[in-house]
Amino acid sequence: MSETPIRFGIIGCADIARKVSRAITLAPNATLYAIGSRSLEKAKAFAASNGFPPQVKVYGSYEAVLDDPDVDAVYVPLPTSLHVRWAVLVAQKKKHMLLEKPVALNVAEFDVITKACEANGVQFMDGTMWMHNPRTAKMREYLSDAQRFGQLKLINTCVSFGSDPDFLKNDIRVKPDLDGLGALGDAGWYCIRAILWAANYELPKSVKALHGPVLNEVGVILSCGASLYWEDGKVATFHCSFLSNLTMDITAIGEKGTLHVHDFIIPFQEKEASFSLGSETGFTELVTGWVPLPSKHTVTTDIPQEAHMVKEFSHLVRTIKNNGSKPENKWPTISRKTQLVLNAVKESIEKSFEPVQIPS
Amino acid sequence: MSETPIRFGIIGCADIARKVSRAITLAPNATLYAIGSRSLEKAKAFAASNGFPPQVKVYGSYEAVLDDPDVDAVYVPLPTSLHVRWAVLVAQKKKHMLLEKPVALNVAEFDVITKACEANGVQFMDGTMWMHNPRTAKMREYLSDAQRFGQLKLINTCVSFGSDPDFLKNDIRVKPDLDGLGALGDAGWYCIRAILWAANYELPKSVKALHGPVLNEVGVILSCGASLYWEDGKVATFHCSFLSNLTMDITAIGEKGTLHVHDFIIPFQEKEASFSLGSETGFTELVTGWVPLPSKHTVTTDIPQEAHMVKEFSHLVRTIKNNGSKPENKWPTISRKTQLVLNAVKESIEKSFEPVQIPS
Repeated sequence: MSETPIRFGIIGCADIARKVSRAITLAPNATLYAIGSRSLEKAKAFAASNGFPPQVKVYGSYEAVLDDPDVDAVYVPLPTSLHVRWAVLVAQKKKHMLLEKPVALNVAEFDVITKACEANGVQFMDGTMWMHNPRTAKMREYLSDAQRFGQLKLINTCVSFGSDPDFLKNDIRVKPDLDGLGALGDAGWYCIRAILWAANYELPKSVKALHGPVLNEVGVILSCGASLYWEDGKVATFHCSFLSNLTMDITAIGEKGTLHVHDFIIPFQEKEASFSLGSETGFTELVTGWVPLPSKHTVTTDIPQEAHMVKEFSHLVRTIKNNGSKPENKWPTISRKTQLVLNAVKESIEKSFEPVQIPS
Repeated sequence: MSETPIRFGIIGCADIARKVSRAITLAPNATLYAIGSRSLEKAKAFAASNGFPPQVKVYGSYEAVLDDPDVDAVYVPLPTSLHVRWAVLVAQKKKHMLLEKPVALNVAEFDVITKACEANGVQFMDGTMWMHNPRTAKMREYLSDAQRFGQLKLINTCVSFGSDPDFLKNDIRVKPDLDGLGALGDAGWYCIRAILWAANYELPKSVKALHGPVLNEVGVILSCGASLYWEDGKVATFHCSFLSNLTMDITAIGEKGTLHVHDFIIPFQEKEASFSLGSETGFTELVTGWVPLPSKHTVTTDIPQEAHMVKEFSHLVRTIKNNGSKPENKWPTISRKTQLVLNAVKESIEKSFEPVQIPS
């Protein structure tokens, strides 16, 4: 039984909306329905340069998208500082919402947004695409395997990309009034989400920023790191940066296993993604080699991970529409935990690297 | 012109001596000359079970090896707590010395050992084998490449191996009176050396242990970590552990490049070793893939890395013997820096994770 695809509106013409609009057209249960920008010309140009089908409605304001009764769901790629204002309106207009990360500047704002979603019965999901790559489920299976991986002991994530002078001067992610969380909100969001994902979303008990964060002249973080500590002794460290070469690593080490992935946010290639596993690894007799060798696993996918995201989101929306059921709580829950840890890291930086306790 | 091989004596029958005695036979400029144990029977059994050639002298004491005038160099695989006593004697007997790591329990002991070497004109080298793998030089070349790697920003190293209950109860590395530095002295030595190696042996200005080290019931470290900070903003983190699956990672991230190696201490296989490099990595147009993809580099070797170590050491000894020149200072220098940082981490753990300044 084929169902009507979920009709998406997009508010804003950010670069990332190019990729997500394509994903909406690739997802089997979603359709690109409308785009709105503060300027009609900009919206038209965006639609044209990204090959939008002619039937896609083009609006000269965000409100027009939200007021269109045929729009089921809205994708919000606006700068973080605008999230609370627009996301609340999206929810009030009873539109389901895919919201770019970082979701908010702080947990209080985050809660305003998700409470509005709850009050209006709309699905919330943040735009962390890698969560939806089929590879991610495969890696999670391994981490949950008591025999092959065992108890998780250590997680390290590194996310960085090199920025040109134009980015460091003009990108919204270095502007205190736009994406004020800088590299922590962008690259760091991924680091923290990956750590929580590996820890099965158990929150750490405390967080401590590493020394030496790099800030720009208006105080936005360009590079920082932190260590995270759990009650059971698990430890995590991460580094996020706009100032070094492209790196997207998760290393997770358990009592019995080791997971490595080097492209967890954006796979090296669109249609396949790999990771490497070691399990109960020992040495050859004279300690001159490893037994067994780590194994490489590749997961292929017919549609890119961002289309999987749209598909999963649209499936949830369809279920709500068909059954009148409540939105899936998993997505706002893990999103909030990410925001909570992220802001704890920021607080630790502001408090001269003191440990910050995470309320459990 | 073929020269007389350097004649090695070994004092002690530690497991690691099996691998190094084989390396001595494999190195083209070295020969296995004598082995001594506190018990003649034990020495004989060790020689027999490791296929020593019949001409190798077998002694019932360490002193006998040191007193043999035909022994040029001594390999010392004794527990760390015995190093200062025996290493000083080795030097006083004018034997060149390959000493297992960790070199000493603290920097003061370290200096006693290397001062004895200096006073007696003998070459000192610690037993950090991976330094001598041809792969290491190749990786170093990349890290030094201003175009492909640029300024070093971040180093993360993880070294762990899972231990069975017997190891955790009986191994010398968990005994406060034998290898009192535990996992920090063993796995952590490698982490710190790798970090210093990547930083071109520039010492960090400060070191701070991570929270949550695991100690056994007699206070020996089974697992710990630290962050290291340099004047220029470089940051490093490491984790070392006896309590998780075998992992031997270096991740080094520069302004323009990323290096990954997952088997830096013991290559997966004896005769070849790989690493992976990214340089000026960007994304495809829609940010759905990486351009260029990281590249894998494999370095083959005719003799194992520990034989390269013996070869390099023997070459230095031969040069001293032939020319009456001074010992090469590089090896004790980097060894001392490793010891210095290692003990600073220990001090930070003892001082409740306070930062410890490193004298420059």
